[in-house]
Amino acid sequence: VTTLEPLDHGGFAVELDPDWGIADRPNGGSLLAMLGRAATAVGSHDHVLAASAHFVRSPGAGPATVSTELLRSGRSVDQVRCRLRQAGDVCVEAVITVGQLDGDADPHWSGGVPDPATTGHDDAVRILGPTPSGMDVPLLRQVDLRLDPSSLGFAGGRPTGRGELRGWLSLPEGAPFDPCSLLFAVDAFPPATFDVAPSGWVPTLELTAYVRALPAPGPVRVLHRAHMISGDLVDESCHVWDTRGRLVAQSTQLAGIRLS
Amino acid sequence: VTTLEPLDHGGFAVELDPDWGIADRPNGGSLLAMLGRAATAVGSHDHVLAASAHFVRSPGAGPATVSTELLRSGRSVDQVRCRLRQAGDVCVEAVITVGQLDGDADPHWSGGVPDPATTGHDDAVRILGPTPSGMDVPLLRQVDLRLDPSSLGFAGGRPTGRGELRGWLSLPEGAPFDPCSLLFAVDAFPPATFDVAPSGWVPTLELTAYVRALPAPGPVRVLHRAHMISGDLVDESCHVWDTRGRLVAQSTQLAGIRLS
Repeated sequence: VTTLEPLDHGGFAVELDPDWGIADRPNGGSLLAMLGRAATAVGSHDHVLAASAHFVRSPGAGPATVSTELLRSGRSVDQVRCRLRQAGDVCVEAVITVGQLDGDADPHWSGGVPDPATTGHDDAVRILGPTPSGMDVPLLRQVDLRLDPSSLGFAGGRPTGRGELRGWLSLPEGAPFDPCSLLFAVDAFPPATFDVAPSGWVPTLELTAYVRALPAPGPVRVLHRAHMISGDLVDESCHVWDTRGRLVAQSTQLAGIRLS
Repeated sequence: VTTLEPLDHGGFAVELDPDWGIADRPNGGSLLAMLGRAATAVGSHDHVLAASAHFVRSPGAGPATVSTELLRSGRSVDQVRCRLRQAGDVCVEAVITVGQLDGDADPHWSGGVPDPATTGHDDAVRILGPTPSGMDVPLLRQVDLRLDPSSLGFAGGRPTGRGELRGWLSLPEGAPFDPCSLLFAVDAFPPATFDVAPSGWVPTLELTAYVRALPAPGPVRVLHRAHMISGDLVDESCHVWDTRGRLVAQSTQLAGIRLS
């Protein structure tokens, strides 16, 4: 979604697009996807395996820069520190491990992975916002984000109390997901806390994502859950499956929340 | 467990203790705890809220340095980049958010948090190593790590296949846990994959921990679980409760694994 323009000193110039955000702020996952592309560009491997980011300041739309530092380039992985700056201020600080995923590998073992069950893509309901507190979400006009009818309670003022949103996500024009766009997918859904209680936006403090497999073409199924709200903070997890039913990405995040 | 010796240029000198490790390598959680102490020292808040680290090289015992960069010091949180170097090489790169935890706050809501059920501390079985593949674990002579009898199958060559270890952890001389030592607690247990299949050590690539509450004095209950083994990588989660039954810390990690 964003081009990285190489700069003389080894960094990249980027343009933050207001269309990929909430109100006038770029979405955190779209920023992490951008840093993932920068990390992949400076190393010798192809696929982000793990990315963790702390969100320092919320950048606005417009020009920004990405700097990278290759911490180690190894036979199996590269490890890269990435920083997004706007007007001289650090906005996102991330460390990213890049390696190789095998497109055909099946999981050797799994246990305690949540059930991907979601209503079929065509029976899910596309949401376009605004949020319960009335914020516009331009992002929802870029992607096709559909919720299972069982996750739609919050939109009518009746959250289920489970803290769980299930649905589907497609990129513009049905573009296939890759490891970097999966970093966006794990943070694209509305806050899972909307299914607990209404609030304003839920700003991410920290987001960690693991990419587990190369996704098949097509939309991805997403399960976004909140786990504990305590002291104005909430942790949320996200699991993403491709159309083959393979777990392709998972994430955890800690975010600020003020319940009304 | 480690003193941070301030250096002229704002960093810290540390001594990595071989007694806090596996074979001759310091344990990853003990390194993250050290970086947590450095992050807390440079900011104006008291408690680590979120820490994420990528493990670049495994340091040996002996001298090392920690450098920090305060990315932002805000009213509610500080965000600090931390780096552990040994002999000039980056070993661990972490970003840490430090804020304030309220000792008395009760969770406002929780859902999908695993059950802390564990046998009583005195009925759990202290383990001292070695690992199934015969590695000595000096760490287990420092802390008191006890497993629920239902988690002991691997020690007799009979993993249950659940990928789950439950038990208790105490610091030397029963010292109370604090937010930084909780960063150690989330990575102190043996790999949860030992309850799936034997392997050599399971080196952490990335570890993210959230501290959710100030722990009460006494041992902590730990639930360490593996979720999916795929392509020589496994993700593990860890939940830690204090003696009041309060969830005090949680973590996720991605680690390398080669099953025999």
